Amino acid sequence: MSRRARILVINPNSNEAVTDGLADALEPLAFTDGPEIVCRTLREGPFGIESQKDAESVTLPLARLVAEDPADAFIIACYSDPGLHVCREATPRPVFGIAECGVLTALSRADRFGVIAIKAGSIRRHLRYLRQMGLMERLAGERPLEMSVAETASGEGTLARMIAVGRELRDLDGAEALVMGCAGMARHRKALEDELGIPVIDPTQAAVAMAIGAVQVAQMR
Amino acid sequence: MSRRARILVINPNSNEAVTDGLADALEPLAFTDGPEIVCRTLREGPFGIESQKDAESVTLPLARLVAEDPADAFIIACYSDPGLHVCREATPRPVFGIAECGVLTALSRADRFGVIAIKAGSIRRHLRYLRQMGLMERLAGERPLEMSVAETASGEGTLARMIAVGRELRDLDGAEALVMGCAGMARHRKALEDELGIPVIDPTQAAVAMAIGAVQVAQMR
Amino acid sequence: MSRRARILVINPNSNEAVTDGLADALEPLAFTDGPEIVCRTLREGPFGIESQKDAESVTLPLARLVAEDPADAFIIACYSDPGLHVCREATPRPVFGIAECGVLTALSRADRFGVIAIKAGSIRRHLRYLRQMGLMERLAGERPLEMSVAETASGEGTLARMIAVGRELRDLDGAEALVMGCAGMARHRKALEDELGIPVIDPTQAAVAMAIGAVQVAQMR
Amino acid sequence: MSRRARILVINPNSNEAVTDGLADALEPLAFTDGPEIVCRTLREGPFGIESQKDAESVTLPLARLVAEDPADAFIIACYSDPGLHVCREATPRPVFGIAECGVLTALSRADRFGVIAIKAGSIRRHLRYLRQMGLMERLAGERPLEMSVAETASGEGTLARMIAVGRELRDLDGAEALVMGCAGMARHRKALEDELGIPVIDPTQAAVAMAIGAVQVAQMR
Amino acid sequence: MSRRARILVINPNSNEAVTDGLADALEPLAFTDGPEIVCRTLREGPFGIESQKDAESVTLPLARLVAEDPADAFIIACYSDPGLHVCREATPRPVFGIAECGVLTALSRADRFGVIAIKAGSIRRHLRYLRQMGLMERLAGERPLEMSVAETASGEGTLARMIAVGRELRDLDGAEALVMGCAGMARHRKALEDELGIPVIDPTQAAVAMAIGAVQVAQMR
Amino acid sequence: MSRRARILVINPNSNEAVTDGLADALEPLAFTDGPEIVCRTLREGPFGIESQKDAESVTLPLARLVAEDPADAFIIACYSDPGLHVCREATPRPVFGIAECGVLTALSRADRFGVIAIKAGSIRRHLRYLRQMGLMERLAGERPLEMSVAETASGEGTLARMIAVGRELRDLDGAEALVMGCAGMARHRKALEDELGIPVIDPTQAAVAMAIGAVQVAQMR
Repeated sequence: MSRRARILVINPNSNEAVTDGLADALEPLAFTDGPEIVCRTLREGPFGIESQKDAESVTLPLARLVAEDPADAFIIACYSDPGLHVCREATPRPVFGIAECGVLTALSRADRFGVIAIKAGSIRRHLRYLRQMGLMERLAGERPLEMSVAETASGEGTLARMIAVGRELRDLDGAEALVMGCAGMARHRKALEDELGIPVIDPTQAAVAMAIGAVQVAQMR
Repeated sequence: MSRRARILVINPNSNEAVTDGLADALEPLAFTDGPEIVCRTLREGPFGIESQKDAESVTLPLARLVAEDPADAFIIACYSDPGLHVCREATPRPVFGIAECGVLTALSRADRFGVIAIKAGSIRRHLRYLRQMGLMERLAGERPLEMSVAETASGEGTLARMIAVGRELRDLDGAEALVMGCAGMARHRKALEDELGIPVIDPTQAAVAMAIGAVQVAQMR
Repeated sequence: MSRRARILVINPNSNEAVTDGLADALEPLAFTDGPEIVCRTLREGPFGIESQKDAESVTLPLARLVAEDPADAFIIACYSDPGLHVCREATPRPVFGIAECGVLTALSRADRFGVIAIKAGSIRRHLRYLRQMGLMERLAGERPLEMSVAETASGEGTLARMIAVGRELRDLDGAEALVMGCAGMARHRKALEDELGIPVIDPTQAAVAMAIGAVQVAQMR
Repeated sequence: MSRRARILVINPNSNEAVTDGLADALEPLAFTDGPEIVCRTLREGPFGIESQKDAESVTLPLARLVAEDPADAFIIACYSDPGLHVCREATPRPVFGIAECGVLTALSRADRFGVIAIKAGSIRRHLRYLRQMGLMERLAGERPLEMSVAETASGEGTLARMIAVGRELRDLDGAEALVMGCAGMARHRKALEDELGIPVIDPTQAAVAMAIGAVQVAQMR
Repeated sequence: MSRRARILVINPNSNEAVTDGLADALEPLAFTDGPEIVCRTLREGPFGIESQKDAESVTLPLARLVAEDPADAFIIACYSDPGLHVCREATPRPVFGIAECGVLTALSRADRFGVIAIKAGSIRRHLRYLRQMGLMERLAGERPLEMSVAETASGEGTLARMIAVGRELRDLDGAEALVMGCAGMARHRKALEDELGIPVIDPTQAAVAMAIGAVQVAQMR
Repeated sequence: MSRRARILVINPNSNEAVTDGLADALEPLAFTDGPEIVCRTLREGPFGIESQKDAESVTLPLARLVAEDPADAFIIACYSDPGLHVCREATPRPVFGIAECGVLTALSRADRFGVIAIKAGSIRRHLRYLRQMGLMERLAGERPLEMSVAETASGEGTLARMIAVGRELRDLDGAEALVMGCAGMARHRKALEDELGIPVIDPTQAAVAMAIGAVQVAQMR
């Protein structure tokens, strides 16, 4: 292998704290002789992506970024996968969306999966996207925390609330694995999994693992 | 992280040459400070897994192996995913099937995927399994090489035949990514991808990348 | 018609009481000039089939049995249909699984069906199998008795519990026919149907009726 | 069992030759101590059911017949299943449609099925009905003979044409079992099956076998 | 455009009050230079269409009517769409069913829709029809008013009951648009929509709008 | 009704000739006492929308326009429905996408529909969108003209090519109605329909008819 590959993880909102959180969450996937994993904030992004308008506002900036940046693979680190298709049009290199990768990775671990959403309002958008991906058949359910992104990131009660919602997904809906439906929940992953006894997937970690596979095998002779 | 994790890749047939091929294919995913990737031949396996009976004959030996081996994650490296569910029952640690992971990884790269089978006779089994996984909606098509496993592994004309079949999947069926439907085709992956211009997924590499993700994040505090 | 056909109903567990129960349940389908219906215990089977491992342990013994026995048709009388595909590979004669036949027969009687499972733990396996069969679209729901097989077979309260669960399937889930999700519930079929007012299908009876059709028409000139 | 049950097979067209053919086809399912199988011509039916109007014209006469006749089960012996739901509304006793039973029985024998239609024009109606039944997922394909009903019943070349079409369904579409999409093809069933080497289902025979199961178990104490 | 087109809206029951209600509901779609909209009672129809038998009883009279009447398009104004396919066979001019058009129009306004049925008993028939139409994927749910048609038409409490049921569909089932599952609810449409804040579709109005489109563009040079 | 409603049809590309063509195509839906139909060019749009980037570039301008313009309903007149969801977020008034309305209207006319695309490259995007809409089950097929938008609009051979492609969709794929997959094909609609003998839907006309229904009934007391 000639050179070290680079995976660019793009936080499409402009909240640097989220980007820092991503970097922490991805540390266990940064190998000395593996691809470099770089987390970057999309300068043009809104402070948070909560509406469809927020999502649309980042599609072209993301496409410009992937067209210009020489990374070997890109991750769009927002659970709406904004701009995924326009980015794929903008570069022949692999572009991964964390929602898609999070769900696909849950499917590699168990038969039916549940999703923990932050807000009830986003479930409708997630369902539409799952339908587009053709992945509804193994969905057990999606339930919201009904907390703000800010609360989720910092609040004391977040883990407790996640456990409560996760239990409903597991016991009422039949989920055998969970996807955390937001880029900013990673630090609760382990505790949630330990508590619930079923695999819990952080979607950014999932996407980076898949990206590592893509860039490493691309370098074989 | 306290200790180096270990991923056990099990070749369920007893053909050591296949196991050696797996080890070669997985080298780019073996990182100095990443999980150890060990490829192992299932002693009890038949020389090749071509029939349903061959597949059934390895389910219990595989379950015994995953119950006893202390690895952090297991890969069943046969495109029929034999014994996947009994192995998951036998251990709480993650068990991945390469067919499932190969398809899921193709879905992370493009909208519709095609599968290159070795023989026409296995397509029916693959379709039944895709239906079980609920992943039919994005299947563009599956087409056979109509070569023996032996021919596929060694023969001169294999790559040429794969390219011809891959072109049909891409141009006639609309596949935008391909899965190689056998554990022993990895060494043709790069050439096939370069020739066709769409992502080509080796399912064992795909499964190991997902397993790396699983074991690494499990070790975070 | 030259000779009397024979249908072999195989109880894949080694509990003779279950085999005897099957024989009783099938008596109304044993016609003087119809096919002989023989119920037989799989010697190699575990005492009960409750886990995936139990199911896997009988696949090859079943395949050997159908390859060697000269019966005209075979029924695998366990609601997991263990070994169905390997048995079909082992003989050109018809092999029926009772889960498949039970559901298909329910579909011949009403639009949406419900399933009474013995334990919650098996529902996940049943759903996966229904998805494999492509028969999810008319499933109204599946609910467990949460009794042991032993209790189900002998206990006083079994019928009362079946009626309660059946009412939920009919009234809450919209089931218009029910499948009893176990080979050992046949003697409650009539009482349950009378109580609920919708068709109740014993899957072994359903499979034998279909097998009778298959073997009889095969003998026409 | 107190009395002999009776299954009424209704030919909804007024062509007595078709009714006689049904009787011949059902002879192997008439057991001395089994249910009596009676074939009857619907007096009000058109000479053949080829259009939607023909089908609609028999729904109310069929409903009247099943409401008045004391049979234990009814079979509507036309591959459009005309009047199935209004008949089920008219009687609490089981009413079977041969199209539904034919397809369900094919599903009990193999993974994917094909249908031999008489005319191309009826395929659209059959597909709509398969969609209503939720049974499209295992359809391999449907192909027409493009012969008239009369030709099919009497013509010399019918079997040869059925074999040719059956081969296309098996080899091009992947069908592993075939349903004969008409009530009047039964006498070619055996020859077609022998020639093609995959199960061929006559839908009326299939429906009667399921009806035998229903009426016999209904008589158990 | 040479002449004024005519759309014939057929009330298949013989209750003139329902026909008058249709005429009122369609007034806003009657443009001076648009197609003439004529509402007509099917003389042969039953007083109400509540059973499958009622529905079957009108199919042939409807087909005769559309074959003979010179209208440019036809609407079958009963939420079971009785006779839709036989009417399409009877005339090359467009025939619309209000159930189909109501659902399709809801899909043009929001992602997932709910249906307000009059009685629980009709939900099963509606679901079967939705499955036939291949439109289940975006169904959020269907819930009944459990009122008689008469009550619905005249009763004081109808609107209040519709609002209560509509809230359940919106809040518990996730419906983002509603279809009123009966031809006689139109006068409550506006109030219901205002109260719930999501689009509410009267299926007859929906069908007429689509028919206007069809007949007007047919007249372009 | 207090005032005349207004429907704003937005051509999201900046080609005024296309806007003029839309106005011509919509003339038969402009009634003296019906809603005013205004066609408008999106100033910020690219000259044609052919890539994903083109589509993304108009989403926010469209959202701004619908938020500010006082029209009673909006039509996004591009067969990719760009910005549909962000526009619906930006206004409580109805927003219609012509692709969605074109397909839904085809479904109101026949069982299975085909789509005539301009270029092969857009079929993949259309299929993904159909999957998102949950409307794949009745798709017979989609085939491209393989002409440029310019050629389609002006060229001599366009109609001949559309007829050839339409015949394939009808005869090889089984389409019983066709959707013209572009906003600029309307003037060929009538000739194509006359030639093929099955309904041909211009999606902009379809959307406007649905919009007329929406705005007119909204004005009832």
